[in-house]
Amino acid sequence: MSSTGKHIQYHIFGESHGKGIGIVIKNLPPGVYIDWDQIQIEMNRRRPGQSSLSTARAEKDQVEILSGIFQGRTTGTPLCAIIFNTDIRSKDYDAIKNTIRPGHADYTAYIKYGGFHDYRGGGHFSGRLTAPIVFAGAVAKQILKKKKIYVGAHIYQIENIYDQPFDPVHLQAEQIEKLREKAFSVIDDEKGNQMKKRISEIKKEKDSIGGVVEVGVTSLPAGLGGPIFDSVESALASVLFGIPAVKGIEFGSGFQIAQMKGSEANDPFVLDEQGRIQTSTNHNGGILGGITNGMPLICRVALKPTPSIGKRQKTVNIQTSSMEEIEIQGRHDPCIVPRAVPVIEGATAMVLLDLLLENGKQEDRWWEDER
Amino acid sequence: MSSTGKHIQYHIFGESHGKGIGIVIKNLPPGVYIDWDQIQIEMNRRRPGQSSLSTARAEKDQVEILSGIFQGRTTGTPLCAIIFNTDIRSKDYDAIKNTIRPGHADYTAYIKYGGFHDYRGGGHFSGRLTAPIVFAGAVAKQILKKKKIYVGAHIYQIENIYDQPFDPVHLQAEQIEKLREKAFSVIDDEKGNQMKKRISEIKKEKDSIGGVVEVGVTSLPAGLGGPIFDSVESALASVLFGIPAVKGIEFGSGFQIAQMKGSEANDPFVLDEQGRIQTSTNHNGGILGGITNGMPLICRVALKPTPSIGKRQKTVNIQTSSMEEIEIQGRHDPCIVPRAVPVIEGATAMVLLDLLLENGKQEDRWWEDER
Amino acid sequence: MSSTGKHIQYHIFGESHGKGIGIVIKNLPPGVYIDWDQIQIEMNRRRPGQSSLSTARAEKDQVEILSGIFQGRTTGTPLCAIIFNTDIRSKDYDAIKNTIRPGHADYTAYIKYGGFHDYRGGGHFSGRLTAPIVFAGAVAKQILKKKKIYVGAHIYQIENIYDQPFDPVHLQAEQIEKLREKAFSVIDDEKGNQMKKRISEIKKEKDSIGGVVEVGVTSLPAGLGGPIFDSVESALASVLFGIPAVKGIEFGSGFQIAQMKGSEANDPFVLDEQGRIQTSTNHNGGILGGITNGMPLICRVALKPTPSIGKRQKTVNIQTSSMEEIEIQGRHDPCIVPRAVPVIEGATAMVLLDLLLENGKQEDRWWEDER
Amino acid sequence: MSSTGKHIQYHIFGESHGKGIGIVIKNLPPGVYIDWDQIQIEMNRRRPGQSSLSTARAEKDQVEILSGIFQGRTTGTPLCAIIFNTDIRSKDYDAIKNTIRPGHADYTAYIKYGGFHDYRGGGHFSGRLTAPIVFAGAVAKQILKKKKIYVGAHIYQIENIYDQPFDPVHLQAEQIEKLREKAFSVIDDEKGNQMKKRISEIKKEKDSIGGVVEVGVTSLPAGLGGPIFDSVESALASVLFGIPAVKGIEFGSGFQIAQMKGSEANDPFVLDEQGRIQTSTNHNGGILGGITNGMPLICRVALKPTPSIGKRQKTVNIQTSSMEEIEIQGRHDPCIVPRAVPVIEGATAMVLLDLLLENGKQEDRWWEDER
Repeated sequence: MSSTGKHIQYHIFGESHGKGIGIVIKNLPPGVYIDWDQIQIEMNRRRPGQSSLSTARAEKDQVEILSGIFQGRTTGTPLCAIIFNTDIRSKDYDAIKNTIRPGHADYTAYIKYGGFHDYRGGGHFSGRLTAPIVFAGAVAKQILKKKKIYVGAHIYQIENIYDQPFDPVHLQAEQIEKLREKAFSVIDDEKGNQMKKRISEIKKEKDSIGGVVEVGVTSLPAGLGGPIFDSVESALASVLFGIPAVKGIEFGSGFQIAQMKGSEANDPFVLDEQGRIQTSTNHNGGILGGITNGMPLICRVALKPTPSIGKRQKTVNIQTSSMEEIEIQGRHDPCIVPRAVPVIEGATAMVLLDLLLENGKQEDRWWEDER
Repeated sequence: MSSTGKHIQYHIFGESHGKGIGIVIKNLPPGVYIDWDQIQIEMNRRRPGQSSLSTARAEKDQVEILSGIFQGRTTGTPLCAIIFNTDIRSKDYDAIKNTIRPGHADYTAYIKYGGFHDYRGGGHFSGRLTAPIVFAGAVAKQILKKKKIYVGAHIYQIENIYDQPFDPVHLQAEQIEKLREKAFSVIDDEKGNQMKKRISEIKKEKDSIGGVVEVGVTSLPAGLGGPIFDSVESALASVLFGIPAVKGIEFGSGFQIAQMKGSEANDPFVLDEQGRIQTSTNHNGGILGGITNGMPLICRVALKPTPSIGKRQKTVNIQTSSMEEIEIQGRHDPCIVPRAVPVIEGATAMVLLDLLLENGKQEDRWWEDER
Repeated sequence: MSSTGKHIQYHIFGESHGKGIGIVIKNLPPGVYIDWDQIQIEMNRRRPGQSSLSTARAEKDQVEILSGIFQGRTTGTPLCAIIFNTDIRSKDYDAIKNTIRPGHADYTAYIKYGGFHDYRGGGHFSGRLTAPIVFAGAVAKQILKKKKIYVGAHIYQIENIYDQPFDPVHLQAEQIEKLREKAFSVIDDEKGNQMKKRISEIKKEKDSIGGVVEVGVTSLPAGLGGPIFDSVESALASVLFGIPAVKGIEFGSGFQIAQMKGSEANDPFVLDEQGRIQTSTNHNGGILGGITNGMPLICRVALKPTPSIGKRQKTVNIQTSSMEEIEIQGRHDPCIVPRAVPVIEGATAMVLLDLLLENGKQEDRWWEDER
Repeated sequence: MSSTGKHIQYHIFGESHGKGIGIVIKNLPPGVYIDWDQIQIEMNRRRPGQSSLSTARAEKDQVEILSGIFQGRTTGTPLCAIIFNTDIRSKDYDAIKNTIRPGHADYTAYIKYGGFHDYRGGGHFSGRLTAPIVFAGAVAKQILKKKKIYVGAHIYQIENIYDQPFDPVHLQAEQIEKLREKAFSVIDDEKGNQMKKRISEIKKEKDSIGGVVEVGVTSLPAGLGGPIFDSVESALASVLFGIPAVKGIEFGSGFQIAQMKGSEANDPFVLDEQGRIQTSTNHNGGILGGITNGMPLICRVALKPTPSIGKRQKTVNIQTSSMEEIEIQGRHDPCIVPRAVPVIEGATAMVLLDLLLENGKQEDRWWEDER
């Protein structure tokens, strides 16, 4: 539960309004220096209270390392990282204890845990639990970078406003690095301004809105993943659908590929100037038969609007079994998409590092009989 | 590898042109009678050679049980089911051994396995490996039916022709049962005829086409799944993305929800006539916070066009490292979507049975201290 | 790594001289009140500095709960418990950084982690990492108790001094409860005094000694475990061999059974006064075919002498690649066996709770067709 | 269930009197030629009907490969191997359907599976299910041999007759190879004759006897395994305790180490002539802190007497709930130990190959920052 990974394992714990949240990461390779400034930069990208468009909850999201780091490097034994909760205003939630919030996990958690879960602020189901994903992803990114692998993401769509998409064939690390520095992750800043304006309007309506995030990964080696249920798509989707609010995932041309003919969708193999095998288009998003083919990995993730809205909504009181209306106060993002960008990047990096190290063992091939 | 499931485990093996393919299913509940006619009906829905729109390969796809069934019932110990390959024409593939087929796993499997994989007909990556999924799904469906849970699917979209969608709030078992009897799984037969016509045209062009399948599940109890990486979406996507050709998955309103406001997307909770908690809309596809809420589960799956096409394509010869052209002969489906319907149903049923039995243990709650 | 469990999962982290150690426990049933006094009593049984026979390191071993407990009860979401290290004297270890201690993990950890592990006090390999096992076991015991299942252990053997063994057929909860209250866990206190005297003598010699612990479990239901690699013996041995210093494990008559004839070793089935099936002897230790049979579970665990001894020993300096001699200073137990008792109990309880909850799901059997 | 392995996974299926038994092995490295003669030699070592001391059941135990081998080599995709049952005499068992055999899994399987298991000949609990272990072990041995790793075993003890033990410091591959060729696996043939004589006597008494098998492994690299629950002991014990009849396991000096002092048990580190780190004794059986140290791995496994004996025994009829007597007819081994030798070797090889390939990925260490 709240765990993922095969070779490297990630175990998340914590509740939004408990003492703290965190993650245990197992099987990280030993001897890696961690750049803590980079970690905090990533944490800050997701951190609440950064702009007028996000919740006012002021958390520093400072990561405290309990184990697994010695003299600045990974030890190879389990790393435990904790983020203590500081700015907790639980009383916001007491009023709505029994009035299940539409679009939230309140009702389903109540059923699953028989009412014993920590309901304050969504407890273990809170979006706050994505902070450990960003942390783990930031560690993973530092290791992936040693293989020149860059994982980036941008806001692809807010309502009907679309950013310029990643180039699926020639995606460059530079673009990814530039995006990381932006407070609002879009390639086309003009489109970004339109998106921000739209989010502001919706905030004034006490409403919220969703969107789509596009992920791109450069320099992935061919050969990661595996057949059937071991596909890269399976591994990534399994983790990305673990991020609250994600309701759709597509790779390459995704749902659009369903309207293509084979003669369009089949990416032709070609040799580049160095004689390496590439594809001249990339409708398959860098994955064929569940295995990476060396082209950029392209993936899009659809997020639903933040369910916490100030507008009056119909719902049920599970204590009294009667219908009620609810107006959610608290502190909430009118659009979670901007803060979801580093989370989605992080989740992607977590999975790819796992696949890469799994694959690493193949390099020697001492077992192979002579051809 | 090629394995999935937590409580119930499914392990697929085999190659398209080897001796046979099959599956080992572990932890099936003991004492269940298996209706073999129903199993064969499901196998036939996927079986090749059934219509002019599918490959001419004539396999009976008869399942042979090696273990796990005694006196007609499941024993509770591992069930091994085998489908022997009979109609093998390997010479079709010898010519193209080194000429990697665009859109196929030929290249990525070559990289991953160092060239030692069985390349004939795609080997372990062949669509033929979905037959064990249909088998396992057929077993799972029989068990789910005892809880009145029905898993159904239909062809939602071929090119720009759309079938009538499932009613996400009032989906009925009757509709699912009716669909199962159809040779071409659509709700609106008129739309189905248009689709078939379009597939025929594309076949004549020696081309292929993809599509979208919609899955619906009735009577799922609330409380299946879990937070973060244990979400129902994670579990289903992980298995559905294991089906060859799947490039996108969305739940409920999916990518559309990204354009909705919170006030639209939040499904209001209401009490039905029996006082049970329902939602009056179902944009979340029956899943909130990763856990089922008792509403119909709705999911759509995008499939790419069959990569095997008769049209001339550019590619690379990995032996000679030179560019070549290829015209794929063999026997192939111009559109895999109709045969994918029972596969997607089966995969969904496999996952849901796993989640249901996992959940089963919660029913007694002997550990709970008095409230 | 450092993880175990199928249904309930236990993930241990931490290093002896780092910031802290701890455990994440996943899938605990929700709604269980935790008796913290009982937890601390168990922690104290293992805690160092309790007697002249154990290391002088003074740790309070107070457990801090970060998540998974709400209003005094388990929530069902991941529980994270931390024990901060307080009394750290790392300089004791700096001198011997490169002089690998015989019988310790210094050399093997060096090889496995390329020298990047935290070597202070054994780091992640320290006996201190058994504290989280005691904690998890204490939680498990509280839940098992609701089914009247009691897990107990005693010092069975120190050198050639043997305690009275558990009665394998009539083991009572009372005896287990009484043992728990003893500072030195033996059934026969006279034998206990002889053992203590012997340990004191060996301490004076700057040497150490090992021993055997016997575990007994009452009221286990029949039907836990499974065939082949899912045997109860496999599950228990896998966890018990994870405790540092354990070098042998036997069930029932264990190595003695190898000298018995079938007619002696086969425990005859009999009906008790209530008509329940029992066995009149219990050479199989409550397990047949890998599955519990309802009789007391009996297991013995052999522990090697504490490798840290004051006596001069031959070893190698891995930095200089030369042979050296070493006299280990630090603070160490001349015999770890007394403090291992609650650890072995705890590990046993962890496994049995996992198996019990796994089994729990079978109780309803809604899937079963009429007989 | 009936599955084991982390990197390489082994999934066993089948019943003693069903259609067949077998195994699916996942993640075998690709490109390995399999020497089928060697496989059959190993199968024959375990095969029944080989001598007057074993059951008269005449099975050829010929392995049929369904998948995972192409052009004589492993493909890297799942290997499925089947052994069809041929000489089935089920009527032997019908008479005793409800009369649970003492020492067998009849009762516990009945409880676990609600009476729906295949009870004929022990079904999935039969010793026959060890044939797939021998097969998987034979494959693993061939791969281990490429690293000069040899896994061997011999009958260490029958009643109070002891074979000469392995030399724990200087164990040679030659001795292991010589043992493999013997029909009765002992180092000292004179002792072997005494054992055989004793087994014959016990057979005449319609009784049975157990024994101890010693396993030795040469040339294991240091660094396999891991801390706490990832110890080599945990991995091996988990699989070895999955072999029916195993009731005790010890590593190195095992239970004897409990009587040693630290100054004796601590194996001193020394440098050999090539400057490599060795230990001058090997009381720890080649494992320190759960990780191999490069010395021979030494392990002893205690097996109980075959529970099927011709002597009259007391038991219970679970149908009538009355006490009965039973005389088991069928075909049984008076002593299972000789045939258990290749099974224990095979299980050990399965685990070590898994650990070795897991470890393999560490060799490159591309992630390591400069020292």
